[in-house]
Amino acid sequence: MNDYTPTPDDKFSFGLWTVGWQGTDVFGPSSRALLDPVDATYKLAELGAAAVTFHDDDLVPDDDQRDAVLERFEKALSDTGLAVEMVTTNLFGHPVFKEGALTANNREVRRYALAKALRNIDLAASLGAKTFVLWGGREGAEHGAAKDVQAALDRYSESLNLLCAYVKEQGYDMRFALEPKPNEPRGDILLPTIGHALALIAELDDPDMVGLNPEVGHEEMAGLNFAHGISQALWHDKLFHVDLNGQHGPRFDQDLRFGAGNVRGAFWTVDALLGAGTGKAYDGYVHFDFKPPRAEAEDGVWESARGCMRNYLILRDKVQAFRADPDVVAALEAAEVGTLRTPTLGEGESLADLRAASYDVEGLGARSVGQEALDQLALEHLMGVR
Amino acid sequence: MNDYTPTPDDKFSFGLWTVGWQGTDVFGPSSRALLDPVDATYKLAELGAAAVTFHDDDLVPDDDQRDAVLERFEKALSDTGLAVEMVTTNLFGHPVFKEGALTANNREVRRYALAKALRNIDLAASLGAKTFVLWGGREGAEHGAAKDVQAALDRYSESLNLLCAYVKEQGYDMRFALEPKPNEPRGDILLPTIGHALALIAELDDPDMVGLNPEVGHEEMAGLNFAHGISQALWHDKLFHVDLNGQHGPRFDQDLRFGAGNVRGAFWTVDALLGAGTGKAYDGYVHFDFKPPRAEAEDGVWESARGCMRNYLILRDKVQAFRADPDVVAALEAAEVGTLRTPTLGEGESLADLRAASYDVEGLGARSVGQEALDQLALEHLMGVR
Amino acid sequence: MNDYTPTPDDKFSFGLWTVGWQGTDVFGPSSRALLDPVDATYKLAELGAAAVTFHDDDLVPDDDQRDAVLERFEKALSDTGLAVEMVTTNLFGHPVFKEGALTANNREVRRYALAKALRNIDLAASLGAKTFVLWGGREGAEHGAAKDVQAALDRYSESLNLLCAYVKEQGYDMRFALEPKPNEPRGDILLPTIGHALALIAELDDPDMVGLNPEVGHEEMAGLNFAHGISQALWHDKLFHVDLNGQHGPRFDQDLRFGAGNVRGAFWTVDALLGAGTGKAYDGYVHFDFKPPRAEAEDGVWESARGCMRNYLILRDKVQAFRADPDVVAALEAAEVGTLRTPTLGEGESLADLRAASYDVEGLGARSVGQEALDQLALEHLMGVR
Amino acid sequence: MNDYTPTPDDKFSFGLWTVGWQGTDVFGPSSRALLDPVDATYKLAELGAAAVTFHDDDLVPDDDQRDAVLERFEKALSDTGLAVEMVTTNLFGHPVFKEGALTANNREVRRYALAKALRNIDLAASLGAKTFVLWGGREGAEHGAAKDVQAALDRYSESLNLLCAYVKEQGYDMRFALEPKPNEPRGDILLPTIGHALALIAELDDPDMVGLNPEVGHEEMAGLNFAHGISQALWHDKLFHVDLNGQHGPRFDQDLRFGAGNVRGAFWTVDALLGAGTGKAYDGYVHFDFKPPRAEAEDGVWESARGCMRNYLILRDKVQAFRADPDVVAALEAAEVGTLRTPTLGEGESLADLRAASYDVEGLGARSVGQEALDQLALEHLMGVR
Repeated sequence: MNDYTPTPDDKFSFGLWTVGWQGTDVFGPSSRALLDPVDATYKLAELGAAAVTFHDDDLVPDDDQRDAVLERFEKALSDTGLAVEMVTTNLFGHPVFKEGALTANNREVRRYALAKALRNIDLAASLGAKTFVLWGGREGAEHGAAKDVQAALDRYSESLNLLCAYVKEQGYDMRFALEPKPNEPRGDILLPTIGHALALIAELDDPDMVGLNPEVGHEEMAGLNFAHGISQALWHDKLFHVDLNGQHGPRFDQDLRFGAGNVRGAFWTVDALLGAGTGKAYDGYVHFDFKPPRAEAEDGVWESARGCMRNYLILRDKVQAFRADPDVVAALEAAEVGTLRTPTLGEGESLADLRAASYDVEGLGARSVGQEALDQLALEHLMGVR
Repeated sequence: MNDYTPTPDDKFSFGLWTVGWQGTDVFGPSSRALLDPVDATYKLAELGAAAVTFHDDDLVPDDDQRDAVLERFEKALSDTGLAVEMVTTNLFGHPVFKEGALTANNREVRRYALAKALRNIDLAASLGAKTFVLWGGREGAEHGAAKDVQAALDRYSESLNLLCAYVKEQGYDMRFALEPKPNEPRGDILLPTIGHALALIAELDDPDMVGLNPEVGHEEMAGLNFAHGISQALWHDKLFHVDLNGQHGPRFDQDLRFGAGNVRGAFWTVDALLGAGTGKAYDGYVHFDFKPPRAEAEDGVWESARGCMRNYLILRDKVQAFRADPDVVAALEAAEVGTLRTPTLGEGESLADLRAASYDVEGLGARSVGQEALDQLALEHLMGVR
Repeated sequence: MNDYTPTPDDKFSFGLWTVGWQGTDVFGPSSRALLDPVDATYKLAELGAAAVTFHDDDLVPDDDQRDAVLERFEKALSDTGLAVEMVTTNLFGHPVFKEGALTANNREVRRYALAKALRNIDLAASLGAKTFVLWGGREGAEHGAAKDVQAALDRYSESLNLLCAYVKEQGYDMRFALEPKPNEPRGDILLPTIGHALALIAELDDPDMVGLNPEVGHEEMAGLNFAHGISQALWHDKLFHVDLNGQHGPRFDQDLRFGAGNVRGAFWTVDALLGAGTGKAYDGYVHFDFKPPRAEAEDGVWESARGCMRNYLILRDKVQAFRADPDVVAALEAAEVGTLRTPTLGEGESLADLRAASYDVEGLGARSVGQEALDQLALEHLMGVR
Repeated sequence: MNDYTPTPDDKFSFGLWTVGWQGTDVFGPSSRALLDPVDATYKLAELGAAAVTFHDDDLVPDDDQRDAVLERFEKALSDTGLAVEMVTTNLFGHPVFKEGALTANNREVRRYALAKALRNIDLAASLGAKTFVLWGGREGAEHGAAKDVQAALDRYSESLNLLCAYVKEQGYDMRFALEPKPNEPRGDILLPTIGHALALIAELDDPDMVGLNPEVGHEEMAGLNFAHGISQALWHDKLFHVDLNGQHGPRFDQDLRFGAGNVRGAFWTVDALLGAGTGKAYDGYVHFDFKPPRAEAEDGVWESARGCMRNYLILRDKVQAFRADPDVVAALEAAEVGTLRTPTLGEGESLADLRAASYDVEGLGARSVGQEALDQLALEHLMGVR
């Protein structure tokens, strides 16, 4: 029997801020001691991760310690063989960003945010990160008149264009990945979903350099289907990175471990990432962005991290078994799922031909679509009874 | 005092299916008699509308009556001076579309859907409609494996490309507007938000021919800010049309009259449409897509229709007064809203300059942002106490 | 291996309206032919059900046919051994109830609703039903002033008191079960959750005669935890009946088959019904109230019905295995779950003693709570990998 | 013109933690300096408040300073004439309560929580507070097996019974008010809505001593209608206190100032509190529990506080004008709203009489209900155009 032990080949990656979250929330202070990020790096390697990621402030909150911390961190990477596959910059924690960063109304703040991002792009490049994530958690507003959305999108674009130009100029091998979120901590956040961010990217000077880092919970907070969302992102060749975690629909951002929350959604998320049964697949790191619940002590932190990887491996197994099951193949055929790849207009056919054809509208209206049968097979694979 | 009586100059437009909704829902049959669409056209003109719109099936459900109905309808247009500013085609009602239309798994269904759309484009052109709306209410799925999303987006694109090519070939002066919706009647609908539809459009052969017809309630069902959404659509030059109505957040599609539901959202929606305080404005018809509650008899149907227009006029007045109020101008300045239009990087400045600058991070973190004061002014304008 | 084939001992029960739903919704007419309710009864017996339930209008929509239909129906019951465990009355479909039934503003409507309920209580009694469900789907409002909520609760109570008095007077062995729902088809429905209905019941003349019939999807539409809700209902001795189905959080009422939607919620729902790991259990019929998706033809209707039962049996097995697993027992102990049954104040102890005690607040704040570990075990039982 | 300046007669009351919130959230540290609670007391008096409320930890976080702080605070009360109308105890902030307080799995924690509550009841009594609020923000769970809900309700009841007994024994003139919330900071919180808390109260030893303190945003986070909720609480004579603020539907707890968010809901909330157009009214303090957005500096804190009171006064005026408007009176009559107070069964009438009566079902189904017309009047009063 598979014991679902992760190995570096599984390409699991963790944000240092995830296991490092101390449990501070709106209703209470931290419940856990500070976890040294370098110690956490060793621990994550031991658990089977292949890479770590971080915000500047997670690793080097104190500039005076920068060189010393980086030296210890690089030694940990070297000792463990972990990669730094992605770096991101914290443009939301410090009060300076309380009203936004790249789209703050205050221009000095925008300039400082851009400078901070640039500085951390250098750090990211020096550590070999190929992806730079931007989560604009404070880019938004509580109230209508407080933000000129069109101007904000101008500034967002300006910033992204400048960052891309800088990366090209420096010759860094790096792409950007935007992380959408509908709300929290701001009342409404700009680029609230995968779709809105994709739309912005198409308007940039270097659209090829910018893609997405969607997060399960962020889309599910808007009641959206995450597997559908990343499938659209893959269709646009824009799934540069991914944040896996768990959520229970529209409510506060729960950041549960992957698999907790909507586990059927998690099954279809893995299916979509693997490109099982469709065209394009995701081939990047499998990155977890979760928060061990505040109630847990350190033992729970590692249980939670272990669970993320273990659940991914379990679900990957199940998805592969589902797609390989001859009954599923037959059910997919009965549901005509594969025929959707056939163009609607035939080779060499004209629209006039199509209009001239006759259609058995009543018969088609009465046809069997076979989707309950297909879905029951999927559910039974998920529950391990096939 | 303004009596908020609409005139054709206000460019109000109504779907014939709105006042014509008979009240059938999942839990009960129709509660109102069929309203003759031609009679409804006269009535809407009398109430002050400038235009009507329809799905093919609203006006000519029965092909045998087609010519007779169209003749009566054209006479009504001529008698009243109403325009047909938009036409749409019903690709969701008949059981043939139960599993999708342009993206149905069944290819015959897709072909029939395309043929139906083409036929109604001809009708739309013949009536002078410049906008053709496509709402893909059944394009989606309840379950994971039932729909290959990437293939579905291929088919959506194929269809739109074919429709655009047809319009060009025929020389029609017509653009398409996609109407996003997250769910209902399908469990998850493709192109669930403004953003997702914008993203698809950027991949089409003729992206300039396709824009959006966003609906207030559809975005609010996903907890999204409608004013933000249409502002982003305007920024992309993609707000080709709009559907105004009311909703109470994530729940079933309520289709309340405009102004009911989230009235603060309605205030900011009008503000965004007018482009008050920003760059680009909407200059199309103000179209209502609502359903008079099932409990109402015919008197309530017309109250509801009247209320849509009246509320728009009231809110337009308020938005204009808000933007003209010197206290608001001062509050906007205090909140630095206008400075967001200034590029973050100065003319002739380099990123190195920006990085070399020093920033008073703590001072900026402690600055006043003035947004509560500004929002209170807006709320008082809405409530008519200023 | 268990083949999860239901038998009458499993006490599965189906509403005739579930498999009988023809697919009519707000956006389209019926997609399936009418299913004869008597034929459906035979079919459900064949699939393994133990009982059926119905609204008056499901079985005898046409009064002229009443005797003939009932005769055929009683023969079917007798042929199959199925029970009629519950009957309910349709107080929401006909336009007469468009603005409410027992709480309609119009008194004639209220009187007619009461008369209809009484008549069907007689029918229910004659068929041996022990539970009479009341779902007040149209009891509510779209708008603030339209309903005097306090008066409505007076009328709700009056009606329930009258119905209870009638049942006692007739000597029927029957209890009432209220079915809460937050919204749809009305904008807001009275008694929106399990809690609100429990509260009302406590004010009735015969609170022992009235309990609840909660539905999975109805609570989940409000983002509430269904297992928590029915646990509270059990704690109040008020879980008289239950409606199992599936839902994806706050959106329209999906009525998916049980197990679809939030499958983790379904696992905990079964755990709560079995009273596994707590005090009181549910011992009534396991009733399904779902809608086979409109896209399905009749084959899908029966797949959907079969899936409801099969998923319940699969989950029941898993819950029992979870509760019996020694690792789970140890994890529950580590999480101190069982100690919650120990009173907080000791036998013979005074509050003064409790206040005088000293508490290691910091130590307790740092304790391990072991909930991630426990939940991971549950998830692995659900996924069948333990 | 009314200038909407509050006076103590308006009975406005503020939690010291509201203006005192420093802006700490999950994504960033505090953005505002600590506000001295005694200074805040003076400032609130100056703004027109009549009372203040607090959690023990807001006022006396440091036990060593207890006497000195209380002395200063009592002087402030005396100087300003402010009352302490309510006190509550913080059973959610300190990590000791990370897994619950009165229903924590750990018995020592439960005992400490009870001791803390008792101690603060003494403080509350010494300051003359007549209401003691209990918000169980950490009473709940993220995961299914982590909490035995039935045992938790036993412990909740035990605690409330002990607290009531203590208050009676001490002869304090004090009642308890439970504050429901569906989720955040826990995944699911026990007693998630007004209804669930009402239901629990009915099972207590002294149900008369315990009522509710519902909060606008908490109910709206579950998509529930707050005015309906407090109307039901009033109907049960259980609206002991109220927390007014603003929210935008199901998402994180926004705690906007009253009037912001769902302003139509706020109008109906005031209408319900005033008992306008119904039976029972609320006569307690009008208490605000909001959080000035994190982006605001201290000026914004006071703007926000001022806005709460001002919006209440504006809405109170509007509600009174609405109820007094002859057109509204006529519209209410047309909508038959008042007839709902008439019992459904006539004086001296039997159920047999009622059943024997004949009903014009089709005619009643076609009747006008007049609710759109009525609601439009309400909306126009809200917008100040009548």
